[in-house]
Amino acid sequence: MLVDDERLDYLLAEDLRIIQSPSVFSFSLDAVLLARFTYVPLKRGKIVDLCTGNGAIPLFLSARTESQIIGVELQERLVHMARRSVEYNGLEKQIEIMEGDVKNIASRLGYEKYDAVTCNPPYFPAHEMSDKNISEHMAIARHELHLTLEEAVRSASQLLKQGGKAAFVHRSGRLIDIIAAMRAHRLEPKRIRLVYPKAGKEANTLLIEGIKDGKPDLKILPPLVVYGQNGEYTEEVRELLYGSE
Amino acid sequence: MLVDDERLDYLLAEDLRIIQSPSVFSFSLDAVLLARFTYVPLKRGKIVDLCTGNGAIPLFLSARTESQIIGVELQERLVHMARRSVEYNGLEKQIEIMEGDVKNIASRLGYEKYDAVTCNPPYFPAHEMSDKNISEHMAIARHELHLTLEEAVRSASQLLKQGGKAAFVHRSGRLIDIIAAMRAHRLEPKRIRLVYPKAGKEANTLLIEGIKDGKPDLKILPPLVVYGQNGEYTEEVRELLYGSE
Repeated sequence: MLVDDERLDYLLAEDLRIIQSPSVFSFSLDAVLLARFTYVPLKRGKIVDLCTGNGAIPLFLSARTESQIIGVELQERLVHMARRSVEYNGLEKQIEIMEGDVKNIASRLGYEKYDAVTCNPPYFPAHEMSDKNISEHMAIARHELHLTLEEAVRSASQLLKQGGKAAFVHRSGRLIDIIAAMRAHRLEPKRIRLVYPKAGKEANTLLIEGIKDGKPDLKILPPLVVYGQNGEYTEEVRELLYGSE
Repeated sequence: MLVDDERLDYLLAEDLRIIQSPSVFSFSLDAVLLARFTYVPLKRGKIVDLCTGNGAIPLFLSARTESQIIGVELQERLVHMARRSVEYNGLEKQIEIMEGDVKNIASRLGYEKYDAVTCNPPYFPAHEMSDKNISEHMAIARHELHLTLEEAVRSASQLLKQGGKAAFVHRSGRLIDIIAAMRAHRLEPKRIRLVYPKAGKEANTLLIEGIKDGKPDLKILPPLVVYGQNGEYTEEVRELLYGSE
């Protein structure tokens, strides 16, 4: 079942496994944080995860909800990895992995049909691609080569019903851009959580959730600090990653 | 020198005094936080403080800079308090308190002439004025009766030179509005700091600084927590208020 340098890793807190590859794609802490942060309809909703990569977010969400989940990924190689992980965990009835371009995915999946959309989009502008040695797979997943932030936000909005919720994770430096894009596409920001690598440091990551055609009423949740002074994960992050023990 | 129920209070960390009145106006922690947060030109700059109230921010800033500072206040009663405090501290050469409407103050003070603008505007929409018992002075200072957030941001931008900096303090729930207003008026947000009443609670206050015609590059500073679990100010807030001891 595994190809080349792929590994079958534990999906941490959940009793699930996921196929990863150091040279192609491994899910990040940000995907875990987004999967924990986002609203999910508990039973009969329909969820789409855009830029699903190796399917980490749909797999995480399957532990939180019985709703149907569609993961959309542009890269065939990652689609293949994600599908094999879904099969390995016996989740074919709940999770569908679709190969497709997020930019115009609503024309295939349908407009205003979904209750929740999650998206961990490429973080870095194309011109910031300094590391020429990374694989094309990595480059596409990390850089805005095929999908800009605004395009991701627009697709999320197109998929959502009125009152549906979209949640994104991104670099905190893009806060202004993501808020502007969300408001331009009818997603009113309602919850923000900032992620700080250590106490006393600037934030590096941002979690944000908006409601389609929602009323302005923003909450800024308590800060999340990733590492303690000893360089190890803080208790809160350990709990998000491995569950409460 | 004091009128009615006015008091001559210490301006905390600084060796200054300020006239306050419980029924008319007293400066808040937010004014202190803004005065500490904002950039100030050290020597020959020109600074304007909009909605200056009893002049707390100009007085605080006078301890950080030799630049000229103009405080603008709509209410004659507060202008009078602020001027007497400036005189009491012998700061007439550095601080000028001007009675005027912030909405169109640039037509009097001049366009694009200032290096820094600070503003602690009225926080609450006019329709949220539930407490009918507060004085008219308090109502005007706290509610957007005579000045909306957008008008305050526009005036700040009009006053600033290119590259000048505007810093605001507001309720964190208005983050989206203030960012939208700043971008609409050529103030690119560059630094944000969120203020949380206690660890584990949602933010309630926001400090934000933008540069006129600046390039997008936002930093989100470490969170500031006001009260410890014991209900007393945290060490960092004590230091901001009373100086390091």
